[in-house]
Amino acid sequence: MQNTEQIIIEKVKGAYEAGKKGAAAGTVASYIPELAKSDGSDFGICVMQRSGSIIGFGDTDRYFSIQSISKVIILAVALRMLGDAEVFSGVQMEPSGDSFNSILKLDTASSKPYNPLINAGAIQVTGDLAGNVTFDEMLSFAREFCLDDSVHINEAVYHSEASTGDRNRAIAYLLKSKGVLKGDPMETVDLYFRMCSLNVTAKSLAGLASVLSNNGVDIRTGRRLLDDYHTRVINTLMFTCGMYDGSGEFAVKAGLPAKSGVGGGICAPARYGMGIGTYGPALDAHGNSVGGIMALEYLSNALHMHMLQ
Amino acid sequence: MQNTEQIIIEKVKGAYEAGKKGAAAGTVASYIPELAKSDGSDFGICVMQRSGSIIGFGDTDRYFSIQSISKVIILAVALRMLGDAEVFSGVQMEPSGDSFNSILKLDTASSKPYNPLINAGAIQVTGDLAGNVTFDEMLSFAREFCLDDSVHINEAVYHSEASTGDRNRAIAYLLKSKGVLKGDPMETVDLYFRMCSLNVTAKSLAGLASVLSNNGVDIRTGRRLLDDYHTRVINTLMFTCGMYDGSGEFAVKAGLPAKSGVGGGICAPARYGMGIGTYGPALDAHGNSVGGIMALEYLSNALHMHMLQ
Amino acid sequence: MQNTEQIIIEKVKGAYEAGKKGAAAGTVASYIPELAKSDGSDFGICVMQRSGSIIGFGDTDRYFSIQSISKVIILAVALRMLGDAEVFSGVQMEPSGDSFNSILKLDTASSKPYNPLINAGAIQVTGDLAGNVTFDEMLSFAREFCLDDSVHINEAVYHSEASTGDRNRAIAYLLKSKGVLKGDPMETVDLYFRMCSLNVTAKSLAGLASVLSNNGVDIRTGRRLLDDYHTRVINTLMFTCGMYDGSGEFAVKAGLPAKSGVGGGICAPARYGMGIGTYGPALDAHGNSVGGIMALEYLSNALHMHMLQ
Amino acid sequence: MQNTEQIIIEKVKGAYEAGKKGAAAGTVASYIPELAKSDGSDFGICVMQRSGSIIGFGDTDRYFSIQSISKVIILAVALRMLGDAEVFSGVQMEPSGDSFNSILKLDTASSKPYNPLINAGAIQVTGDLAGNVTFDEMLSFAREFCLDDSVHINEAVYHSEASTGDRNRAIAYLLKSKGVLKGDPMETVDLYFRMCSLNVTAKSLAGLASVLSNNGVDIRTGRRLLDDYHTRVINTLMFTCGMYDGSGEFAVKAGLPAKSGVGGGICAPARYGMGIGTYGPALDAHGNSVGGIMALEYLSNALHMHMLQ
Repeated sequence: MQNTEQIIIEKVKGAYEAGKKGAAAGTVASYIPELAKSDGSDFGICVMQRSGSIIGFGDTDRYFSIQSISKVIILAVALRMLGDAEVFSGVQMEPSGDSFNSILKLDTASSKPYNPLINAGAIQVTGDLAGNVTFDEMLSFAREFCLDDSVHINEAVYHSEASTGDRNRAIAYLLKSKGVLKGDPMETVDLYFRMCSLNVTAKSLAGLASVLSNNGVDIRTGRRLLDDYHTRVINTLMFTCGMYDGSGEFAVKAGLPAKSGVGGGICAPARYGMGIGTYGPALDAHGNSVGGIMALEYLSNALHMHMLQ
Repeated sequence: MQNTEQIIIEKVKGAYEAGKKGAAAGTVASYIPELAKSDGSDFGICVMQRSGSIIGFGDTDRYFSIQSISKVIILAVALRMLGDAEVFSGVQMEPSGDSFNSILKLDTASSKPYNPLINAGAIQVTGDLAGNVTFDEMLSFAREFCLDDSVHINEAVYHSEASTGDRNRAIAYLLKSKGVLKGDPMETVDLYFRMCSLNVTAKSLAGLASVLSNNGVDIRTGRRLLDDYHTRVINTLMFTCGMYDGSGEFAVKAGLPAKSGVGGGICAPARYGMGIGTYGPALDAHGNSVGGIMALEYLSNALHMHMLQ
Repeated sequence: MQNTEQIIIEKVKGAYEAGKKGAAAGTVASYIPELAKSDGSDFGICVMQRSGSIIGFGDTDRYFSIQSISKVIILAVALRMLGDAEVFSGVQMEPSGDSFNSILKLDTASSKPYNPLINAGAIQVTGDLAGNVTFDEMLSFAREFCLDDSVHINEAVYHSEASTGDRNRAIAYLLKSKGVLKGDPMETVDLYFRMCSLNVTAKSLAGLASVLSNNGVDIRTGRRLLDDYHTRVINTLMFTCGMYDGSGEFAVKAGLPAKSGVGGGICAPARYGMGIGTYGPALDAHGNSVGGIMALEYLSNALHMHMLQ
Repeated sequence: MQNTEQIIIEKVKGAYEAGKKGAAAGTVASYIPELAKSDGSDFGICVMQRSGSIIGFGDTDRYFSIQSISKVIILAVALRMLGDAEVFSGVQMEPSGDSFNSILKLDTASSKPYNPLINAGAIQVTGDLAGNVTFDEMLSFAREFCLDDSVHINEAVYHSEASTGDRNRAIAYLLKSKGVLKGDPMETVDLYFRMCSLNVTAKSLAGLASVLSNNGVDIRTGRRLLDDYHTRVINTLMFTCGMYDGSGEFAVKAGLPAKSGVGGGICAPARYGMGIGTYGPALDAHGNSVGGIMALEYLSNALHMHMLQ
């Protein structure tokens, strides 16, 4: 057992080195000022094992903006509170092949957003919650799912989101006009902006991934946070749609469920009950962390974790 | 061991019953006359196990038109002959979220088709082969990958395909105009039509699935037909894009790599080296076999085969 | 001269009869409750001649909702107050070929709306005014351009517009997100809704058309309301884009600048300084008044008024 | 009368100077090698008056490739031989707002091309003729409509068209697949390529424009070549759709029916029975001759020829 642990630690170290090196090729997001302040050479990886032991290298405790990874938490809360029938009455489960903030398909193909991990779908799901759940309650859920009570809102990011969020407002009003969005558009988008503005660490994301790779159970307490089927729904959506329009290639190469955010994080539930969180704010053209992808591909190959192999 | 075998047989029987019953809800394809002749109440399922033993219920030996499942064979041949770098220089690995015969994205998003399992992508990959490989050679490959020497062309279907194939010709010329298609458009489309016109059985599809679920190895002979990485590429693409615009939902519910065809077949490589082939020509609105989906969801749940669980 | 006058009166009567008869083929708009109350068999036509004499048949004094015809007034006000360079820095002059409320092109082709006579373009132009001009001032302009002090807001229509206007809000936020819209989205859309809710008569529209067919001059007073070039811009846009996605066919058949609204009105400046207004709330599939089109085609042919002949 | 003639000559000279100067701002088309050989500083304008007198400045006798202006001839032949009901059963009369070779709308909005002056529409109309009319007959028609027996095919251009024409083949097959195209796709496209490869001069285009500005009559002989209504249809379509996606702006600024080609020509029927042809191979971003636009705007303003004024 000691041996296995030792091997895993070495492989995670290798993944860290691959990610740290890879980071050089990316570019820090600049669409809101707060994100642009990040240091593109930062990189960290944290692995939470089923046993509870945590392996980390690099910037695992640095706070950064969760951005799109909050879509996973929003979906998890909605599935738990409302059930899958309710949630998927307003959003599909299909990969879209379009970029995260596309409006095109809403108006040409289907009034229901393609899936809950693109902006339109996440706003739709947020609209199921807005009015019923306060942001404080959402924050509690986020802490619970991340196994991390230090998750908090970054007010500067929130204000930036709110002041540059007109495209998301457009999406919310378009969904409302089609009779799909349940909540008030402005209230919905405000809750969505707050959730995107959460500050997390690679460790928080490893916690979230741990819950997802352990069928919805908090490994520290044994308490079930999500039921089996909902966990599987989330993992499958992360596998097919979690990495923007780079999802297909990531599925081929790393083969893990994963959700990235333009803040530089990736949350990846893996085999053997492992939860992986990475942080590397240098992004590729799809908006995914270059270092994160490098590290996850490395680790997936090193530990034979491709889910379809 | 006897017990396990017995359980599997029972579960496959349950899957057959679910599929047979489900078939009632679908509609036989009518876009070419030959397909319209099928009997919508037909249903068969065949499972080839790693041991070589075969379990079958219902119409497992009835020949039907392979249609889109030939895209898997075309891709397999291209990967084996040309390598993945060459193949993916002309086609992406991304789910498209559009219907199988969409032209839209080619002209608005990217000149490279989204993936090799939609028409545009399969035509692109066929264009890599056309001129270098004859149809007779392709037929030999098909028999090899399906572990079935009885696979043959249905001339009536081929002539129907050729006489109604103007949209595919349009796609081929569009790809040519964008400098992506390597072969001659007319020659490429002709080879593509022939491959879509192969006659197979549920058993042939179980054979193809067996190769894919055994990392590219022919379990009868131990001979490697596809290398490990290429097999993984195909399985991942089947998982994310194999069921037309119902791929995402199938991934959530059944969680198997699978490729369907409007002839009524589904080929699904599964856990434990199982290869599953189903035949049920009654289709849903996406063009997927209703019975096949029912049976695969049943079996996946009964044998805990969801790949992301 | 008496003779000519007599001929014109007869032809207008013929146009009225054609329009009244044609109305039977259309359907009253139902997207807001107030419009659905209209009587589809109503029809009226009013012609204001350069001399100031007015010829009218049928429902020429019945108030109805101006709807999209307000786009002409909004554009006229913006051109007069801001000049064409300013206005066309944010909107194009091109026909779009899409329906009036399309969002598609905004997101795929150009961030500047195609022209000021579709919703996106009119909202864009309204955004140039919002914050600088009050609704009361806009109402004064409307009365001035329509040569009719009785033009007034219909509060019930305004409330309906506001409560069903989420698609227009989406458009405004999308334009804002692209950095094109100058005004505040909510304020802009509110002003736009108010302008769409003006109550006018066929006679008011004849007045507006009279100004446009007399190079921007109020024929009653000789006062110039619009300069020559701005009048020509408006007339040309009405010719190429004024009848939604039926503009091309109307240009071929009637050959007049014209702007229709789903309230049933059409405003058509014609040759010889004639201003024509029609009212017929029964609409065709494009959203144009069936009776109005019939009447205008009749009159254009009867008086040889096709502009390209 | 002498005076008027003198004024016209002076204004045409002014137009020539404006066009010659404007040409500097454009770029010669390079999509086929033959076009790239043109000298971007060339410019010529030719005006054929109702009296038959011809005014010309600059390169009025230099042969160049007619390209898209052949769409006007194809449409004229089809209207004369088949009538407007037959022709417009397969093509609309609406401006499209898309670029000349767009496929998008065919697949999303309507299977009938938007109008006969974009590629898809011209191919559709050519398909009405292919099989019934030989190219030699089409060439005779071209000479007749251009009042110029020297119009001839440029074989080098034809071969270039044929070897780079895959996008047009794609359009033809797409139209065929939708059941709209009547002729054989390959035969249709071949005839279309030949028509695009005609060599004309600014004088030939002035001849064509003369027929269109004289209600379809050959002013030299008094013989009617096109009936009144068909002439009006063509002129209206040229007004709304003749200048690619610069049509709307040209209509506002010059206000003439006009059709341009990437060979550098523009054919513009104008008021007073004037037919104008220009040649200037330096193009703007829309594919329209920069010099031609400058000259036509100049002349339209100088002689008060805006059709909507």
